[in-house]
Amino acid sequence: MDMTTIAGLITGIIVVTLAIMTGSDLSIFINLPGFLIVVGGTFAATLVKFPLTTVWTALTVGLRAVFVNEADDPRLLINQAIKFVKLVRSEGVKALEKVPVQNSFFKKGIQLCADGNDKEFTQEMLTREMNLTIQRQEISAKVFSAIGESAPAFGMFGTIVGLVQMLSQMEDPSKIGQGMAIALLTTLYGVLIAQIAALPMSAKLLAKAHQERDNRSLIIESLKHIHDRTNPSMMLDSLESYLPEKQRLGDAKGRHPRRRATDWK
Amino acid sequence: MDMTTIAGLITGIIVVTLAIMTGSDLSIFINLPGFLIVVGGTFAATLVKFPLTTVWTALTVGLRAVFVNEADDPRLLINQAIKFVKLVRSEGVKALEKVPVQNSFFKKGIQLCADGNDKEFTQEMLTREMNLTIQRQEISAKVFSAIGESAPAFGMFGTIVGLVQMLSQMEDPSKIGQGMAIALLTTLYGVLIAQIAALPMSAKLLAKAHQERDNRSLIIESLKHIHDRTNPSMMLDSLESYLPEKQRLGDAKGRHPRRRATDWK
Amino acid sequence: MDMTTIAGLITGIIVVTLAIMTGSDLSIFINLPGFLIVVGGTFAATLVKFPLTTVWTALTVGLRAVFVNEADDPRLLINQAIKFVKLVRSEGVKALEKVPVQNSFFKKGIQLCADGNDKEFTQEMLTREMNLTIQRQEISAKVFSAIGESAPAFGMFGTIVGLVQMLSQMEDPSKIGQGMAIALLTTLYGVLIAQIAALPMSAKLLAKAHQERDNRSLIIESLKHIHDRTNPSMMLDSLESYLPEKQRLGDAKGRHPRRRATDWK
Amino acid sequence: MDMTTIAGLITGIIVVTLAIMTGSDLSIFINLPGFLIVVGGTFAATLVKFPLTTVWTALTVGLRAVFVNEADDPRLLINQAIKFVKLVRSEGVKALEKVPVQNSFFKKGIQLCADGNDKEFTQEMLTREMNLTIQRQEISAKVFSAIGESAPAFGMFGTIVGLVQMLSQMEDPSKIGQGMAIALLTTLYGVLIAQIAALPMSAKLLAKAHQERDNRSLIIESLKHIHDRTNPSMMLDSLESYLPEKQRLGDAKGRHPRRRATDWK
Amino acid sequence: MDMTTIAGLITGIIVVTLAIMTGSDLSIFINLPGFLIVVGGTFAATLVKFPLTTVWTALTVGLRAVFVNEADDPRLLINQAIKFVKLVRSEGVKALEKVPVQNSFFKKGIQLCADGNDKEFTQEMLTREMNLTIQRQEISAKVFSAIGESAPAFGMFGTIVGLVQMLSQMEDPSKIGQGMAIALLTTLYGVLIAQIAALPMSAKLLAKAHQERDNRSLIIESLKHIHDRTNPSMMLDSLESYLPEKQRLGDAKGRHPRRRATDWK
Repeated sequence: MDMTTIAGLITGIIVVTLAIMTGSDLSIFINLPGFLIVVGGTFAATLVKFPLTTVWTALTVGLRAVFVNEADDPRLLINQAIKFVKLVRSEGVKALEKVPVQNSFFKKGIQLCADGNDKEFTQEMLTREMNLTIQRQEISAKVFSAIGESAPAFGMFGTIVGLVQMLSQMEDPSKIGQGMAIALLTTLYGVLIAQIAALPMSAKLLAKAHQERDNRSLIIESLKHIHDRTNPSMMLDSLESYLPEKQRLGDAKGRHPRRRATDWK
Repeated sequence: MDMTTIAGLITGIIVVTLAIMTGSDLSIFINLPGFLIVVGGTFAATLVKFPLTTVWTALTVGLRAVFVNEADDPRLLINQAIKFVKLVRSEGVKALEKVPVQNSFFKKGIQLCADGNDKEFTQEMLTREMNLTIQRQEISAKVFSAIGESAPAFGMFGTIVGLVQMLSQMEDPSKIGQGMAIALLTTLYGVLIAQIAALPMSAKLLAKAHQERDNRSLIIESLKHIHDRTNPSMMLDSLESYLPEKQRLGDAKGRHPRRRATDWK
Repeated sequence: MDMTTIAGLITGIIVVTLAIMTGSDLSIFINLPGFLIVVGGTFAATLVKFPLTTVWTALTVGLRAVFVNEADDPRLLINQAIKFVKLVRSEGVKALEKVPVQNSFFKKGIQLCADGNDKEFTQEMLTREMNLTIQRQEISAKVFSAIGESAPAFGMFGTIVGLVQMLSQMEDPSKIGQGMAIALLTTLYGVLIAQIAALPMSAKLLAKAHQERDNRSLIIESLKHIHDRTNPSMMLDSLESYLPEKQRLGDAKGRHPRRRATDWK
Repeated sequence: MDMTTIAGLITGIIVVTLAIMTGSDLSIFINLPGFLIVVGGTFAATLVKFPLTTVWTALTVGLRAVFVNEADDPRLLINQAIKFVKLVRSEGVKALEKVPVQNSFFKKGIQLCADGNDKEFTQEMLTREMNLTIQRQEISAKVFSAIGESAPAFGMFGTIVGLVQMLSQMEDPSKIGQGMAIALLTTLYGVLIAQIAALPMSAKLLAKAHQERDNRSLIIESLKHIHDRTNPSMMLDSLESYLPEKQRLGDAKGRHPRRRATDWK
Repeated sequence: MDMTTIAGLITGIIVVTLAIMTGSDLSIFINLPGFLIVVGGTFAATLVKFPLTTVWTALTVGLRAVFVNEADDPRLLINQAIKFVKLVRSEGVKALEKVPVQNSFFKKGIQLCADGNDKEFTQEMLTREMNLTIQRQEISAKVFSAIGESAPAFGMFGTIVGLVQMLSQMEDPSKIGQGMAIALLTTLYGVLIAQIAALPMSAKLLAKAHQERDNRSLIIESLKHIHDRTNPSMMLDSLESYLPEKQRLGDAKGRHPRRRATDWK
């Protein structure tokens, strides 16, 4: 589970609830018709904006990605890659056929390698696959950011509807309050949907897509070295540029224990 | 038909109508002069913004694309491509002359291939054609997004006109209500035109243009393999990167039944 | 003449005038000092923003491009190119010296070709010339969009000035109306200048610059084929990707009559 | 001096002053504390936003560039380049050592050429220098546009402060006017600083950076021709693509007198 | 320490405090619940927007970078590079093993060089490392700009909450003031957090990332020359394009004393 997403959402709800309850009863902020205007209008606009499969993917695969941490630790990927290159250097490329690989993208690459495909074919195919996958994830992020743009607009729409109704019924002053309430509440709902859920989720999806892209670049780079049977310590040097400086083996301040170069023998 | 576009528009209209009718009569939201200000101003600005053919294309070809699903299923394109490469491997490139191809872009590519043109020429020509087509579709999307920008601006224009009229006739308080009504209603019309129709349609057009681009990239890639007489199972591997992971044959969770590699013999 | 620009501007003025006159006299919307604030401020900002020659070019060459249709029909360019390649194939490159060419860019290219310059030099030089010309047109478009950004800002400035004056003279209630009038009118002027004239003209300039770029790319592509003495029907196939699908000879639905391949003999 | 910048600023100040004085005394628009809030806040934010050297460069080199015209006339650069290539063709590359060159970038290039450096080295070095210089100028433009973003924000901040003070002292109605005055005046100051000075100056800096880039591209291109000892009339043809069509020698409408090709002998 | 960041923040706080205290007591601007709404909501949204490690990195490494000047003076890097190339020219590449290098990126490059790696490998590896590091710094900048977007939105949210509460309790006029106060204060807090801290810090981080990128490009360029054993004075010429014109040795106005070419012997 991605605890930050969940913690963020819970914090947001608590903050909003407390914010309201310090000044008044929570009930005056609940207005079902107003809520339906914002949600319904946003839903309608989203259906027009994207093909159904895109919306569906965003709401299933996308939402799952927002709440679950799936990215592998790049440190582990590097360790595996080093192990593989040592295997290939000692036993040849065929030895890769039997090794277990968790990451499905890495697995596919290792398979292509073990099947004896040449380096250019493997690189080109994996790069295209990486780009197309990232593209699909970015489209999901776009669905959420589109929701985050529509919600405040329909909130404003609800507010204007309420104002018009209030203004046209000014003979009856008792309804002024009610009209203003709907008016402002829809704006409130729109802002909240956009600022607490839709836009942040879009940002998280993008952040994870970029994390995934970095991991896959690392894997593609690893496979190039495996093809070239690069010297493991040189390969480690090269792959560690994918890690922040603090996490590199060569840096004593890293979270990972310092392993000496001789470990790679 | 693109049911999501239609469903979205109908949902939008229902939501808006209900939103209004829970608080008042629908009639107080109808104001023909205000509506004409917004639509007429937006129409005028659009004519100045684009050449006539561009506007015309957007309103005919573009609108059609918004309401009709024309993109081929990439899975079917892959299946066809596999069939073609097997044909070429067994009977030579001339055999492609007789095969029926639905997709007009694929047809053109197969024709170029069957005519014996060399790989580079085919690739370059199809790539340019793809890019220019996508460019034309993006221009249609731009027309709709321009409408979506003008409509709220002319809504605001109408609102200010109404306010000025109201303020300059304040001796007659009975007209205040009427002036405010026109004022706010034009803003309402502008927001609705932009948020329910123009901007979402622009987004859908873009989404379909990108779908089409992906399909055409897939076709161009297929033709490269057909030229190279690639091994069909390797070609399948390569082309499936254009599908989301779930739909690949190699994935048991896919919507499409798992075919075994031996099927391709 | 570019009838859409003119029709758009006239439509805009009619819509605005009618919008105003349904509710009041036109005279209450006329305020010379307010108008001068918006126009003067925008003019001042534009002078600071751009070098004088840029502003001058935008207001002369740019405005002319907005109101006049100068782009050649790509279909005619293709026909000419086909004629030229046939000439070169039968009589050699020297024959190009005598052919009449309307389009000045095409003329320059044909001249370079007839002078016996090699393909790379011609391509490089024409491509650079195309890019620099488009760049100059885009700068003119930028001047208009800068005007479209300044005008509403100075409209808002005028509004605030009016509000401050009104607020500081509240002892004399008879001046409240006058102050509010100037205030709102400047905003109105700013919105109109931006939405009816400046921003749409900027968009039209950009659209025409892109049309010109497409035509010039087509010409550059044609000259490549003329240099290569490509087979005319193959060249036609290749160049038609610059046309929308409907207008291609190979498409029976096109506006242009279907010519058979044998016509090119 | 760049007369347009100065003319623009003076026009702006006159327009603003007249705008105010038609409706009231100028003195009610002067509020020192409000002015200090906007200027002080903007200054503080700018210090946090950029390193001190960047701010300093923007306020010295940048401001100088806004008020002074330093770009050379491209026509003169072309004439010089033609003269140089003729010199090299007749007397060899060493002859360049003695020629006087005003433009410091051109001078450096000619020096590199005269020193016998090879073409690739010269091209690469000058191109990098050009890009890095443009980058530095764009950063100065960014400082001004950052000021143009902060000023209205601090104007709005001052307005809210004034409103809160006014609202919390409503028992004393005599202070309402004063509070509202500060409130709106800071917004006014913010808008003016941004719209008359900061944003336009940022635009002018960018425009001049692009002019400089075009000139330097022209010089780099010239040096390529000088290295290649290109035929002068061919070189003229090639370099004139850097001029707008009207100013080319081949165009009778140009500002520069038509020189005949024989002049170049 | 980065004195401009600190000076900017202090100036900002002083300006804001004075701005408030000229018109009223500071205490009426303090509202803890309102402050918690803005900070809490922004914090919640930020947690949803980014993975925890990203937020953590931004708040530790990022904040440190905002307040500390770590970038080396490019002039010193150039001097070192010149020293190294002279060493390599006289004593060979092995001599680099013993030289002390402060800058960790330069150190890594020199190490790769001394180890006898070939030029392409060194260049590719350092370039990738540079790009990935810059990317990580840009992500930290994005966290701050996300905070700068959320804060005003939650400020506005608090304002609407306050308005709704005030409107629904209008029977009790004594609470109107209090409601309006919270309402406007949250907007004030949001604007201040964004305009004084979050957005400027994001800008500073970006500026420093770009400074770092320029330094690293300079180092990569230096290593290319060291590999090529370029003539030191030619190398100096080439590297000085990384300095603003004024600071070059060839320019008498520079801050650094003019050294004559003979110094490099």
